[in-house]
Amino acid sequence: MNISPSRAFTSDNNASVHPAVMAAINVANHDHVIAYGHDSFTRQAEDCFKAEFGDDIAVFFVFNGTAANTLSLRSLVQSHHAVLCANTAHVNNNECGAPEKMVGCKLIGIPAVNGKISAEDCESHLSIIGNEHFAQPKAISITQLSELGTTYQAEEIRVLADLARNNNLYLHMDGARIANAAASLGCSLRAITRDVGVDVLSFGGTKNGLLCGEAIVFFNAQLSEAFKFIRKQHMQLASKMRFISAQFEALLTDELWRKNALHANKMAQLLAEGLLQFDDIKLQHRVDGNIIHVHFPSDIIQALQEKFYFYVRQPELGGARLVCAFDTTPEDVQNFIDTINVLKK
Amino acid sequence: MNISPSRAFTSDNNASVHPAVMAAINVANHDHVIAYGHDSFTRQAEDCFKAEFGDDIAVFFVFNGTAANTLSLRSLVQSHHAVLCANTAHVNNNECGAPEKMVGCKLIGIPAVNGKISAEDCESHLSIIGNEHFAQPKAISITQLSELGTTYQAEEIRVLADLARNNNLYLHMDGARIANAAASLGCSLRAITRDVGVDVLSFGGTKNGLLCGEAIVFFNAQLSEAFKFIRKQHMQLASKMRFISAQFEALLTDELWRKNALHANKMAQLLAEGLLQFDDIKLQHRVDGNIIHVHFPSDIIQALQEKFYFYVRQPELGGARLVCAFDTTPEDVQNFIDTINVLKK
Amino acid sequence: MNISPSRAFTSDNNASVHPAVMAAINVANHDHVIAYGHDSFTRQAEDCFKAEFGDDIAVFFVFNGTAANTLSLRSLVQSHHAVLCANTAHVNNNECGAPEKMVGCKLIGIPAVNGKISAEDCESHLSIIGNEHFAQPKAISITQLSELGTTYQAEEIRVLADLARNNNLYLHMDGARIANAAASLGCSLRAITRDVGVDVLSFGGTKNGLLCGEAIVFFNAQLSEAFKFIRKQHMQLASKMRFISAQFEALLTDELWRKNALHANKMAQLLAEGLLQFDDIKLQHRVDGNIIHVHFPSDIIQALQEKFYFYVRQPELGGARLVCAFDTTPEDVQNFIDTINVLKK
Amino acid sequence: MNISPSRAFTSDNNASVHPAVMAAINVANHDHVIAYGHDSFTRQAEDCFKAEFGDDIAVFFVFNGTAANTLSLRSLVQSHHAVLCANTAHVNNNECGAPEKMVGCKLIGIPAVNGKISAEDCESHLSIIGNEHFAQPKAISITQLSELGTTYQAEEIRVLADLARNNNLYLHMDGARIANAAASLGCSLRAITRDVGVDVLSFGGTKNGLLCGEAIVFFNAQLSEAFKFIRKQHMQLASKMRFISAQFEALLTDELWRKNALHANKMAQLLAEGLLQFDDIKLQHRVDGNIIHVHFPSDIIQALQEKFYFYVRQPELGGARLVCAFDTTPEDVQNFIDTINVLKK
Repeated sequence: MNISPSRAFTSDNNASVHPAVMAAINVANHDHVIAYGHDSFTRQAEDCFKAEFGDDIAVFFVFNGTAANTLSLRSLVQSHHAVLCANTAHVNNNECGAPEKMVGCKLIGIPAVNGKISAEDCESHLSIIGNEHFAQPKAISITQLSELGTTYQAEEIRVLADLARNNNLYLHMDGARIANAAASLGCSLRAITRDVGVDVLSFGGTKNGLLCGEAIVFFNAQLSEAFKFIRKQHMQLASKMRFISAQFEALLTDELWRKNALHANKMAQLLAEGLLQFDDIKLQHRVDGNIIHVHFPSDIIQALQEKFYFYVRQPELGGARLVCAFDTTPEDVQNFIDTINVLKK
Repeated sequence: MNISPSRAFTSDNNASVHPAVMAAINVANHDHVIAYGHDSFTRQAEDCFKAEFGDDIAVFFVFNGTAANTLSLRSLVQSHHAVLCANTAHVNNNECGAPEKMVGCKLIGIPAVNGKISAEDCESHLSIIGNEHFAQPKAISITQLSELGTTYQAEEIRVLADLARNNNLYLHMDGARIANAAASLGCSLRAITRDVGVDVLSFGGTKNGLLCGEAIVFFNAQLSEAFKFIRKQHMQLASKMRFISAQFEALLTDELWRKNALHANKMAQLLAEGLLQFDDIKLQHRVDGNIIHVHFPSDIIQALQEKFYFYVRQPELGGARLVCAFDTTPEDVQNFIDTINVLKK
Repeated sequence: MNISPSRAFTSDNNASVHPAVMAAINVANHDHVIAYGHDSFTRQAEDCFKAEFGDDIAVFFVFNGTAANTLSLRSLVQSHHAVLCANTAHVNNNECGAPEKMVGCKLIGIPAVNGKISAEDCESHLSIIGNEHFAQPKAISITQLSELGTTYQAEEIRVLADLARNNNLYLHMDGARIANAAASLGCSLRAITRDVGVDVLSFGGTKNGLLCGEAIVFFNAQLSEAFKFIRKQHMQLASKMRFISAQFEALLTDELWRKNALHANKMAQLLAEGLLQFDDIKLQHRVDGNIIHVHFPSDIIQALQEKFYFYVRQPELGGARLVCAFDTTPEDVQNFIDTINVLKK
Repeated sequence: MNISPSRAFTSDNNASVHPAVMAAINVANHDHVIAYGHDSFTRQAEDCFKAEFGDDIAVFFVFNGTAANTLSLRSLVQSHHAVLCANTAHVNNNECGAPEKMVGCKLIGIPAVNGKISAEDCESHLSIIGNEHFAQPKAISITQLSELGTTYQAEEIRVLADLARNNNLYLHMDGARIANAAASLGCSLRAITRDVGVDVLSFGGTKNGLLCGEAIVFFNAQLSEAFKFIRKQHMQLASKMRFISAQFEALLTDELWRKNALHANKMAQLLAEGLLQFDDIKLQHRVDGNIIHVHFPSDIIQALQEKFYFYVRQPELGGARLVCAFDTTPEDVQNFIDTINVLKK
């Protein structure tokens, strides 16, 4: 293949590390510091999270998104519990069964319009509570930005949180792209998490310009009492923690997270507009953030893939996903549109 | 506390990142590359490992040592199996039960002189093979450099490998400090692993100058057939893999691993010599690599800890561990010795 | 409540123990025999299974159906695998997440017409094979008699088995009511299992007249090599095994299994005919065996439940399940129909 | 081999079912009752337990001892915890790693004199509490009657319970042979469990005359809140529960448990006295209950095993275990002694 993925729309985790983040890593590289997070870089990064979410949170850093989601759930539910989520949820589809292995619980995938689930969807699964033959619903997990590129409004989250609270469930948010959601909604990170009843947040870093690192934010610190042991046993305690912490400090300083996300979202809008010029290219969902789900006509999709690597989710329908990142440029977008123009001639 | 850990002997994972490794990270930071290891940096790092260990190996990168050891065992044994190891083994003592959780197996800790186990030690545990009431021995795990700072000679490893092979067991090596062992023995990495019958090696990076990254090397690639799924499910698949791979390429180029290890070992020798000047300070074990186990007299240990942070393993006996790293300096050593001199006056 | 469940249609596991089975238990109760299955009763029961299924099978006894299904899957798949099954499958819905906990795998519930899945249904889930982000399909599990009371024809099973074999998957059958299916189809047990490509069978005993006991039958004995250890570790090894084995010998002698099943099926037919006399009572599915799924009009269902305990699966629709057992009598059926007649007046 | 195990000393689980227990099973076999323990037999058996241990306990029945112990621990600790027990404990040695698989925790086997551990033994393992690198001690598990045949005095248990309580640990008792212990000590079941601080008891039935059945008794019912789900998910919920419950009612009526245990203990005393007639046969431990650990001279042990099947634990030393049961007779004992006499001539 002569694919050059160097400027493609495959995923925001194909992107590079933001220069300010990389600079912070380099700055942190001097002398010895105590390992496993007992260092000043980690204290400062924690303070950045407290500035965003409140002083009484507990925050822990892990290596990747699979761990952030799985260990969030591990801290909320036991093996005989079930987690309600969209059938399109990353945690349900794309983790090779990590929650089932790590927690031993069942995931109940609810058919989801636009990647989002509603309180009504969830409520219909609660009648089994108390019946020992069924895995017991104990958490709801939602993804913000959703896997299909849509956002939950703050009020939609609050309704889910109320349902959860009223039924003794927890509300988890997979925020691998929470920055894109907050940037899209024009609100603070807190406004769509803690303030509307989320219990635990997987806070994404890698897709928004970090080298490696995700955070788990507990809005009720009591839920995190055993977490330092859980993190260690589940193989997610970094010895040279300072290098993860320094990245988060950079990302949370002067809202770099929002700048990166706004740019990625803007590039997705530009790309969506470009695609809509073509009569036979259809968007599948609203483009709220940096993800576009699109149907390409069958006569160009293969040729397009020879130029640009991207995920084709429904080969028979030409359904594909395009993602923009903090380092996507207007030229990248134009190049993609130009290529379609050439192919269609 | 007025402890300055910046130049202490706590652990080699308190150290910084080697400049050449950090440079490689910076160099890798341009453009997009396909995530999850489907990139040229990863191919090159794999080639470096093949140059050390042979073209027919399989190698996988994970985030940390807990994962390297635990997932090595996960690939070798099932839940009804047992792993024989030294009672002092990191995998047995210091992973918060990660192997028990991840594999579901039992670890059988064998009392170990100098941190090493022998074939005779292991053999006495094999009579239960076939009896369904006992977890079935299926792997032997040894640590090189051992947790007590001693090395296995190549021939000692071969005898263990023969016992394993003859009884249908596998031999795993926790090589968190294999570089220090090979440097100490003056041999190649291969001479104390593949060439003497090790099946799977946890190859340590972080303790020898990496920012974050360990490798699992399968000398029989068939043992790794399911490993890409195991790694993903067990939350150890890095999306921006290039930044781990680039570090390993740097570490394996021009034997940087050996240079780093030789330096750390040399500093440990210097420190040991300094300590032996004092009549009432006793070394507990041979100092083959970069780890020193020592007994401090009770009248100075507390004062010493107020100046330097280090692990006290046997408080009642004054038993402590001191570790040197690639960035330990002769001045650091002298400073420690000088401090003891001052305290003893 | 004044419910007398003593002659109800709740489930075949509310039934008693068949007299011939109870007699066998009593006969086995003399002297000492070696525990854990190393006894002559167990050898004889195994021989009965070999007479049904072939001399080269391997068969193991466990305590209950949850274990028979879960440990069958445990012997076929690893944690990073997925099992394809009907969304109505007992193993998916009614085991409180036992497979997820015990195996760590994901169950993929396929929407199922009449409780049955087809090869086409399964095939659409195979495109993810090889992609490490997805739990890997490795087994298909079907239920015979299905949870909705329908049977798979032998040829339908063969098509599923062919798909499985061609894609390196295994075919498991949950045969909690396999006797009812074989009785309904008028065939041998072997004709709808081994002869059409099933790899492992959960053979139901408790629902067909045993006190306690299920069997796992491996048609390829190699698949069972580790099973004696798996059974012990998973808490399913009976010490006084003779009392389970003796039951199976009774059940398999002179096809008692078929007699019991034929009777239960016949009572279900009688009950179905009685129900169909009422214009506003509708059967939801074919009644192939001893299970009836029915819609009761909303004005009688509650009153009916005050007389007879049975499962209401869709309260809003009046959807209920009725099950007949080996000890259901024509009088029991008539009593139920008479009660409806009274309620409708 | 011409071994007749019909009247041997292999284990109390080689014994038969006590006639009164078998009679109760037969009596329970009429009509339908609601499955899974929602029946009057189960209520009555629960009441029997409450009469022994107090009205505010919670009691659950499971199939076997592996489950009783493993699920007791499962209800007390999480995966990142450790359980302190004797290195000779059944739960540590003889369950094929069931606790490690089911709970994911680590067992710390403490060298035990006479099969018993002391508070001092346990206390030395508590210094790691709070350190995330170590599995966290959260329960102590003791066996009463111990595996070596010795009993804990009530006061010894209380000291362990106090240590546990003071350090936020739980105390579990493996009571597979608690009846033999209580009979030996001449006390109530409660006097050596609840009254001295045990939190959860595995109450043995099978070894004392049941067909199949063990109970888990929670003295603090709050600890059992999730247990009905845990039992189901861990494959230990019997559908025809009445047949387990009826056995326990029989065992607890008129202290049948004590009668059976007293007889077995008495036979063990008789056997021990017979063995002590021989100068070269040595008892290894006190014979407090129905278990004898003995050293046979090497010249007779093999010949003896050709006549009687029993466990040889230390082949090189002639170390063997002999167990008496409720149905062991004085003639069985005399026959064994006579055989030794013949062999020694």
